[in-house]
Amino acid sequence: MIIDGKQISEDIKQEVKAEAEKLKAERGITPGLAFILVGENPASQSYVKSKGKACEEIGFYSVTEKLPATVSEHDVLEMIRGFNNDPKIHGILTQLPLPAHISEQKVIETILPEKDVDGFHPVNVGRMLIGLKGFLPCTPAGIWELLKRSSINPAGKHVVIVGRSNIVGKPVAAILMQKKEWANAIVTVAHTAAPDISYYTKQADILIAAVGKARAITAEMVKPGAVVIDVGINKIADASTKTGFRTVGDVDFERVKDIASAITPVPKGVGPMTIAMLMVNTLRAARGNVYYSRAGQTAPEMYQAS
Amino acid sequence: MIIDGKQISEDIKQEVKAEAEKLKAERGITPGLAFILVGENPASQSYVKSKGKACEEIGFYSVTEKLPATVSEHDVLEMIRGFNNDPKIHGILTQLPLPAHISEQKVIETILPEKDVDGFHPVNVGRMLIGLKGFLPCTPAGIWELLKRSSINPAGKHVVIVGRSNIVGKPVAAILMQKKEWANAIVTVAHTAAPDISYYTKQADILIAAVGKARAITAEMVKPGAVVIDVGINKIADASTKTGFRTVGDVDFERVKDIASAITPVPKGVGPMTIAMLMVNTLRAARGNVYYSRAGQTAPEMYQAS
Repeated sequence: MIIDGKQISEDIKQEVKAEAEKLKAERGITPGLAFILVGENPASQSYVKSKGKACEEIGFYSVTEKLPATVSEHDVLEMIRGFNNDPKIHGILTQLPLPAHISEQKVIETILPEKDVDGFHPVNVGRMLIGLKGFLPCTPAGIWELLKRSSINPAGKHVVIVGRSNIVGKPVAAILMQKKEWANAIVTVAHTAAPDISYYTKQADILIAAVGKARAITAEMVKPGAVVIDVGINKIADASTKTGFRTVGDVDFERVKDIASAITPVPKGVGPMTIAMLMVNTLRAARGNVYYSRAGQTAPEMYQAS
Repeated sequence: MIIDGKQISEDIKQEVKAEAEKLKAERGITPGLAFILVGENPASQSYVKSKGKACEEIGFYSVTEKLPATVSEHDVLEMIRGFNNDPKIHGILTQLPLPAHISEQKVIETILPEKDVDGFHPVNVGRMLIGLKGFLPCTPAGIWELLKRSSINPAGKHVVIVGRSNIVGKPVAAILMQKKEWANAIVTVAHTAAPDISYYTKQADILIAAVGKARAITAEMVKPGAVVIDVGINKIADASTKTGFRTVGDVDFERVKDIASAITPVPKGVGPMTIAMLMVNTLRAARGNVYYSRAGQTAPEMYQAS
């Protein structure tokens, strides 16, 4: 099975759109998202543009503030405080990375936890590990939702995560080890310090690759029948394309797909889920109730308060 | 090797005492710890008594507020707010469990993060998982310190943790998976959902048992040469003792000690470390700089700001 992240993300966006219309009709609230974009990083520009477009599609209000790379940290923090106090804005997203003279951690911690739709504030990270309601970071939440909507239940399974970043590896581990439905996995977090990473990957019932290295996970490293989730986005040279490059994941898709029971492609796997879950988080922020989507629930139940 | 937690904890307390004297001499600050004890739970009473005694031994100021089990949640929170504003108090500890009508989470979140010497506030939990400075919860911090002071470096090793509580399993995993010196381990969190827990325990280079079940980890479940850390405190019937019971760990110590390269006994293993690390956290709170103890550092360096 090829897990169609593109389709699933479109389904979710449609569900969010319907929920947002209901929220507007019933309570007069339009979910609002503020983007802060510092400098001219092309990837950041492109991400913010895609996120803004998603807001438009589903009827969210959004505002994008573009600041020069020379802006002071003080001015960025002041702008965040402004959005913290703005009742039209329910979610605030400062696109990372930021120029070196601005502390990313200070920026993250200045955003009110209840407007932290990226799920990066320590309060939300802590609540996630403890198992309390909060905003889950978008990519890990997207991975979880892909599993649920593909009827892949991690309970009792060995989930091996390769990579331990704060935006993917660590939060995915925190989510899937919880004693909750659609979680409850035995979780291993493996990384570059392992003398032989394949010792771990070969054990995985569900393998989550967040290595940041093109096709680092080869077929020899995967147990036949495993579920493989590829979080990588790597550009490699390809003379046959117009641009001279193409995008591949952290998994050698062409060979691994023949032995995996299910696998996400790159592109159109995990990638589009990140934006979809950002929309879910913003809807939840606008509703004023922050909670995890729950076991066996698909929309619209997953958008109800718990 | 039998890891002598009792001795190591005494060493740490002596170091903290010396540091506290210096703090008093140089800046006129005496570290102060407030205990809130609700109800008549004998185990809680005994824990608070031991912690108060440790404060006395090392020259900390401490105050213990005993409240009846019928006290309202409001009154407990007001008491915490009072200590939050009390400059003589640097750490606040509400002994858990609390009566059912009082929300433990509300209590934990009312304590200022900078006075949360138990390391249970979501801000501190989140900072721990992200890898930032903060208060580490005392038992996990004690396990980490036992490893360091026994020259057991988890880097690149397979650490298998059995149990995923918020006070042991999850935070130990969060600490040991960080890309830091004396951490950097491949971490597996196993638990009751595993069809066969021994599949995981047998792989452990370092096995951390926090199961809460007397001698659940048998010799067959341990790889020869493994380091075994036993976090369990279980009372079992024993007619040969005065009290009619004795305390054993989660590990079958008598048999496992013959195959492990190092092992903590119960009692006098992890147990005494919890109080020692509470003293360390309180000293750090009093100094006003909160940080992790760092690689290869023993006192007094581990008490310096990083």
